Amino acid sequence: MKKMIKIIGLGLWLSAVVLSNASAQQFGKPEDAIKYRKSVFFVMGTQFGQIGSMVQGKVPYDPKVAAESASVVEVMSKLPWPAFTEGTDKGETKAKGEIWMEPGKFKEAQDKLIAETAKLATAGKTGKIEDLKTAFAATAGACKNCHDSFRSK
Amino acid sequence: MKKMIKIIGLGLWLSAVVLSNASAQQFGKPEDAIKYRKSVFFVMGTQFGQIGSMVQGKVPYDPKVAAESASVVEVMSKLPWPAFTEGTDKGETKAKGEIWMEPGKFKEAQDKLIAETAKLATAGKTGKIEDLKTAFAATAGACKNCHDSFRSK
Repeated sequence: MKKMIKIIGLGLWLSAVVLSNASAQQFGKPEDAIKYRKSVFFVMGTQFGQIGSMVQGKVPYDPKVAAESASVVEVMSKLPWPAFTEGTDKGETKAKGEIWMEPGKFKEAQDKLIAETAKLATAGKTGKIEDLKTAFAATAGACKNCHDSFRSK
Repeated sequence: MKKMIKIIGLGLWLSAVVLSNASAQQFGKPEDAIKYRKSVFFVMGTQFGQIGSMVQGKVPYDPKVAAESASVVEVMSKLPWPAFTEGTDKGETKAKGEIWMEPGKFKEAQDKLIAETAKLATAGKTGKIEDLKTAFAATAGACKNCHDSFRSK
């Protein structure tokens, strides 16, 4: 009986929490898509910044932490793009109209970032800070390239 | 000369964007730590919700998408905990004081979630929706367990 109540409780909770997330995932509401992609970029930026602090000598190089951060950056780099759905050019976003007007160029910029973050993750695993520096700069270039064209200041 | 200007430009941009992220990563400002962990949870919830839609039959089961989402959930489950730094119990957060008052219990809840999302990622790779259903329910239980104790309604 106690177990049954527990299962029902979990079911109700799932309906409330996961279903609301489910509709967020399908990006029914433009603001959910915007919140999702901004969340991805914030996590990516924070982890990338962690690597930045190391390659710039602001904090000591920790190969394990750097490798983990690089791997997270790689995972995150693939996520935000489906959230640039139609109608999400307005609201709490710095996304420029060019994203929807030049989809081919936007896709190119995504692919460039994804390729560079894969190299960053590989560089993280070598345990050599010189490798990380090179890959960090190339990844930063890919970030900047996309921001310059597709993100308002 | 053009290349030199490009390098200087990238350097300035890095200083502005990455250094601000770097300080966010070190969570100097409590609000950055809060924003970071909320971002992680939002990405995790969105991806988990995507799996939820499939196991609940709301969208067709796509083994590839489900496996990717499960893998992202696994990665995300490890990230938010260092951001529960001191002084981040106030502000735009639903974090309960119990997080800081019962660190052992909070750590247990984290470990439980991390263990369940690892099983979720494994289940995602089998391509069998029954496996996914089981792991989804167990992961949802771990989410709920932590929310009940450590997150305000």
